[in-house]
Amino acid sequence: MHSRPGTAPTIETIARHAGVSTASVSRVLRGLGGRPDTVARVRAAATELGYVPNAMARSLRGGQSRQVTFAMPDIGNPVYIAMVRRIQQVVRAAGYRLLLHSTGADPAEELAALRALADRHSDGLILCPIRVTPAHLEELARSAAPVVVIGSVPEEVPVDSVRADSVTGAELAVRHLVAAGRRRIGLLNGPADTVPGAARHRGYERGLEVCGLPHDPALTSFGRFDAVSGEAAARDLLARVPGVDALFCANDLIAVGALRALRGTGRDVPADVAVVGVDNTDLAEACWPPLTSVDLGSQERGRLAAELLIARLDASGRPPVSRLAVQPRLVVRGSCGSTAGTTATHKEMS
Amino acid sequence: MHSRPGTAPTIETIARHAGVSTASVSRVLRGLGGRPDTVARVRAAATELGYVPNAMARSLRGGQSRQVTFAMPDIGNPVYIAMVRRIQQVVRAAGYRLLLHSTGADPAEELAALRALADRHSDGLILCPIRVTPAHLEELARSAAPVVVIGSVPEEVPVDSVRADSVTGAELAVRHLVAAGRRRIGLLNGPADTVPGAARHRGYERGLEVCGLPHDPALTSFGRFDAVSGEAAARDLLARVPGVDALFCANDLIAVGALRALRGTGRDVPADVAVVGVDNTDLAEACWPPLTSVDLGSQERGRLAAELLIARLDASGRPPVSRLAVQPRLVVRGSCGSTAGTTATHKEMS
Repeated sequence: MHSRPGTAPTIETIARHAGVSTASVSRVLRGLGGRPDTVARVRAAATELGYVPNAMARSLRGGQSRQVTFAMPDIGNPVYIAMVRRIQQVVRAAGYRLLLHSTGADPAEELAALRALADRHSDGLILCPIRVTPAHLEELARSAAPVVVIGSVPEEVPVDSVRADSVTGAELAVRHLVAAGRRRIGLLNGPADTVPGAARHRGYERGLEVCGLPHDPALTSFGRFDAVSGEAAARDLLARVPGVDALFCANDLIAVGALRALRGTGRDVPADVAVVGVDNTDLAEACWPPLTSVDLGSQERGRLAAELLIARLDASGRPPVSRLAVQPRLVVRGSCGSTAGTTATHKEMS
Repeated sequence: MHSRPGTAPTIETIARHAGVSTASVSRVLRGLGGRPDTVARVRAAATELGYVPNAMARSLRGGQSRQVTFAMPDIGNPVYIAMVRRIQQVVRAAGYRLLLHSTGADPAEELAALRALADRHSDGLILCPIRVTPAHLEELARSAAPVVVIGSVPEEVPVDSVRADSVTGAELAVRHLVAAGRRRIGLLNGPADTVPGAARHRGYERGLEVCGLPHDPALTSFGRFDAVSGEAAARDLLARVPGVDALFCANDLIAVGALRALRGTGRDVPADVAVVGVDNTDLAEACWPPLTSVDLGSQERGRLAAELLIARLDASGRPPVSRLAVQPRLVVRGSCGSTAGTTATHKEMS
């Protein structure tokens, strides 16, 4: 039943033999199922051609690398560092080394990371894209090794995933600001065409709606997910709408930039303008005033993604596809002016 | 002259044939020289046994990976992120992908990264250790692919390296604080048994000496290179020596922790206590007051290390071993209270 190295059937051979697409073969061989007759034909062809599944096959084709890769959009964003720490704990405990790849959120780099799995330098990949293109879905469907996505993937793509709930998270932030008396709440967002940018925008609008506040487009701006962009966007918004009394920032880096802009224009935080970030990174504690931030469970997402990947790598059976979601929570600190404790600490300084 | 894959002579075979050590063979074959008669014997043995050098050999043995790895001590420290960005620019431009490995400053992990070069998942390694053990030197001498060290390595180890000058950097900081009128300058250091910890301690002592100030051991403390440790160390030092008027912190993370401790004990920065960090990371801009910090040229070190690695990977000849050092400079911001501009900004807030 074993094929010798070098003569192992490829996905293409099996697909031709079974009369199905290579994507179907890939799905079936990775244990992700398919239409019953497709599964039966692929399995028959694989057996006939001497296909050896999973770890055994990898082993015959030159050994497992015992390495897994985490491809993340921006190594300069501490939210991904928090994920790295938890992923590393899990994969180390399972006897794997973790390699990291900073893609710059460039789809071409992400696709390259997916394709590189065929080189067997890595036994599996955790991918965290901020845009999911059709090309991503295509590569995911035929990846040469297990992949877990941190982010949202369409229902029909059979890949393990762990996502945050940014919409609910953004809504939480806006409702909290309104409860604290703020009425002119700006949104400093990342790019509109990213999954997190779109979700945080939706949550912001939903929060305003739930609270019965009008949605003024002049209060929304789109930029990048970094501090330089956040500072510029805040400065523009403050010039455009001087009466803004709160800024909801789509991540902590944008919020750090906004704090700098507010300081530069002589506004007090939180007395004049409240500020809330997203991701509850280490920066939220390091900046001043300490930043209220929506925790989207980055560590939890990292842990779950790593556990799913290890389960699929080590599985002798074929685990069903998992789609997990992690719930958000708001971590209140001094920058939104709504807790006695942190506000007092701030007043002590001024 | 070519050997076929699978029959390629190993370093051990060549060493036996030439009657020299495997370390010598490794050095000669990597183009790092040696005693003239050793070089001649190794070359003769290599030719006789059909050894195929460098890229060609890798290519015959299964192709280059076109990947290089950067192994760094702590992905949570933004100084390494700054290095990553510059390294990535250089290696991408040369057609390589960059993989990252966060070692947690664990020598076992660093040695594993060196040994993993033999698996050919990576064509070369940039290693940034904070402790250099005899085991490191041994692995460096026989590494299976080119390595560049960011840090100090002993003269006799023939490996490309790029180092900072922490001693001069720390001295700069202390002299600046003394010039600004501070007299009770504490040192919050990382571990004493690390290369940067030892160097920053030496520079601190030298700065005090040059300025004619006594060295009071009660003003020095050792901890870890992170913010939690920095906060605890600052709190201890303030309790022990309430009259301290400046804190020189061995990196920006420690300084961020110290700022938090100072705030917690009601001290004003810089009026009561001046604070200076090291590494001039993004955190120095994000924290409040903005942090004066010694720039040890992390980006420059990253760029140079990457260029050295690419030069060695692409070289048809045998580049001589390079030992580069990058000069430090002090970047003055509000936390040391010595510049009109930044002090004014701070006063505006208080």
